[in-house]
Amino acid sequence: MKGINPDFQRPGGPATPDSVEAWMDSIQNQGISGLSRAISLLENKKPEARNTAMQVLQASMPFAGNSKRIAITGIPGAGKSTFIEAIGTYYASKNVRIAILTVDPSSQRTGGSILGDKTRMENLSRLPNVFIRPSASEGTLGGVAAHTREAIYLCEAAGYDLILIETVGVGQSEVAVHSMADALILITIPGAGDELQGIKRGIMEMADCIVVNKAEPPNQEKANHAANELRNALHVFPPHPYGMQVQVRLASAKTGMGIEETADCILELIAKAQSQGTFEKRRTEQTAYWLTEALHQRVMQGIMESKSASEQWNTLKLKAEKGEINPFVAAQTFWDLFRRNIQ
Amino acid sequence: MKGINPDFQRPGGPATPDSVEAWMDSIQNQGISGLSRAISLLENKKPEARNTAMQVLQASMPFAGNSKRIAITGIPGAGKSTFIEAIGTYYASKNVRIAILTVDPSSQRTGGSILGDKTRMENLSRLPNVFIRPSASEGTLGGVAAHTREAIYLCEAAGYDLILIETVGVGQSEVAVHSMADALILITIPGAGDELQGIKRGIMEMADCIVVNKAEPPNQEKANHAANELRNALHVFPPHPYGMQVQVRLASAKTGMGIEETADCILELIAKAQSQGTFEKRRTEQTAYWLTEALHQRVMQGIMESKSASEQWNTLKLKAEKGEINPFVAAQTFWDLFRRNIQ
Repeated sequence: MKGINPDFQRPGGPATPDSVEAWMDSIQNQGISGLSRAISLLENKKPEARNTAMQVLQASMPFAGNSKRIAITGIPGAGKSTFIEAIGTYYASKNVRIAILTVDPSSQRTGGSILGDKTRMENLSRLPNVFIRPSASEGTLGGVAAHTREAIYLCEAAGYDLILIETVGVGQSEVAVHSMADALILITIPGAGDELQGIKRGIMEMADCIVVNKAEPPNQEKANHAANELRNALHVFPPHPYGMQVQVRLASAKTGMGIEETADCILELIAKAQSQGTFEKRRTEQTAYWLTEALHQRVMQGIMESKSASEQWNTLKLKAEKGEINPFVAAQTFWDLFRRNIQ
Repeated sequence: MKGINPDFQRPGGPATPDSVEAWMDSIQNQGISGLSRAISLLENKKPEARNTAMQVLQASMPFAGNSKRIAITGIPGAGKSTFIEAIGTYYASKNVRIAILTVDPSSQRTGGSILGDKTRMENLSRLPNVFIRPSASEGTLGGVAAHTREAIYLCEAAGYDLILIETVGVGQSEVAVHSMADALILITIPGAGDELQGIKRGIMEMADCIVVNKAEPPNQEKANHAANELRNALHVFPPHPYGMQVQVRLASAKTGMGIEETADCILELIAKAQSQGTFEKRRTEQTAYWLTEALHQRVMQGIMESKSASEQWNTLKLKAEKGEINPFVAAQTFWDLFRRNIQ
């Protein structure tokens, strides 16, 4: 296992784990750097690392599933990071262990630093019972890091009680985000209107709690108005599939107004779902979703690893985009070529 | 090509086409029975039929893309069929050729008659410039027949100007429906509230036009109230990604009230998108969506055609559902087995 990711070997740090047992020890007994290293293993694309990652994921299963998973989404500029810092600090004060998985939009644009979020949540990151992990938002699921779903299992194996997943809210597949959390929180701002441009249509109806953030002076009136409009809109939305009473809350991450109430409210929504049995139902349906998603992704990725296959598809795709070939014919042609090659 | 589908050979009817040219002639010059036969070819699962279907789809490409595609969705009981009958009759009176692709929910339940919709839209089906094709709603796209997207191409090759696609609105992937139309119409009813239970969350935000149907006496007041609530809710929805002014209309398919206005309004929405260039943009993005979707479906279906592969996956899936194996490990294990088998 040596050298599968040079990042694991930090000067003076512990050696890279060389067995699944050692990886589990790293996750469960070596603090945030141990967990962080294991999440890097998930993100490592080398086949041998991927192989180890799968064994570690499987070894984590007996310890998985016991956290509460909260997804937080919203447009850039809605104040997601400061909101997470605020509720995270409150939760942490209750002796809860919190893991925060954030998607760093800056890394999407620049391919650069993935430490951006750590500085954005400086105070929170200093607390001993808080783990913050920023990830680049590259990957197939748009707006959520490719391995976020896997990372949740490791955080749970590390004993975190509460997992906050931040996403940028403008990705291709908000369903993916929606399908990894026990509650989806949408952060909006007073008088958003056109600022909502770019947010994925449908996400508002999927939210379990909508927070009107930045409700501090001089925005109170606008914030109240926005909250009332949202509450009215909830009347025409389809009823919640798991029977949750969708909440609209005013908050100000800046002044702290409404933060504790919102944080409590989110946990109450989840607790109620647990007592009503809908929590389990939701998780079961999410597992079914992820099973199919994981299968399709793994298979398509595996097939496209072949250079000739990916070149063939790119050629067909280009022709289909130009209208020269029917999309279904393109798919069939690709499959015929692939099948011939493997026979 | 003989005998690939006994249904093609109706007593006294024309012979089953025996070449791609003959199929195109069937689609373009043999009226509704010719087109209907070609859509049956799309639905035929036999490999040789599928092969011909692909050639026919490809041959249709030069004639495809010129219609306006309108998707109509809503909960069972909202009156989708009578609404379609009403606007369809109006459109037909304007000398427009209309193809209606409906999903027959009864066939989903019983596996039975696919003639249900024809009787449901009896008057409309008698008009010479109207083609109605009910399909069973089985298939991977939930709520929309598996081959509806393909059938659109054939209807266009047959020269239909307007294609109405009815879906049940409660399926897994409303995105699929949303991604095949130039405008998505949501049919609702006054005071729906809990009746909306079961409708897919997110669909309301995706609608380009929301029709409050059954707005005839004694429902007027409730209908007006519902329409106002919907109009207010539109304020908090994310702005339309293609800049459409989402419409809320009152209508009664029973009395005819609002039907012509709604029908005109839908065409105006599309015409405006055409003049603004967003129509083309939307179609381009839809093609991209369908390319990926068609590829994934074709490949996964092809792989699962192998009995051993599908048995392996079912075993893994069951273990994952029981929590014995991690979903991502299940996917990886399946891929490893598959790759080993093809090497």
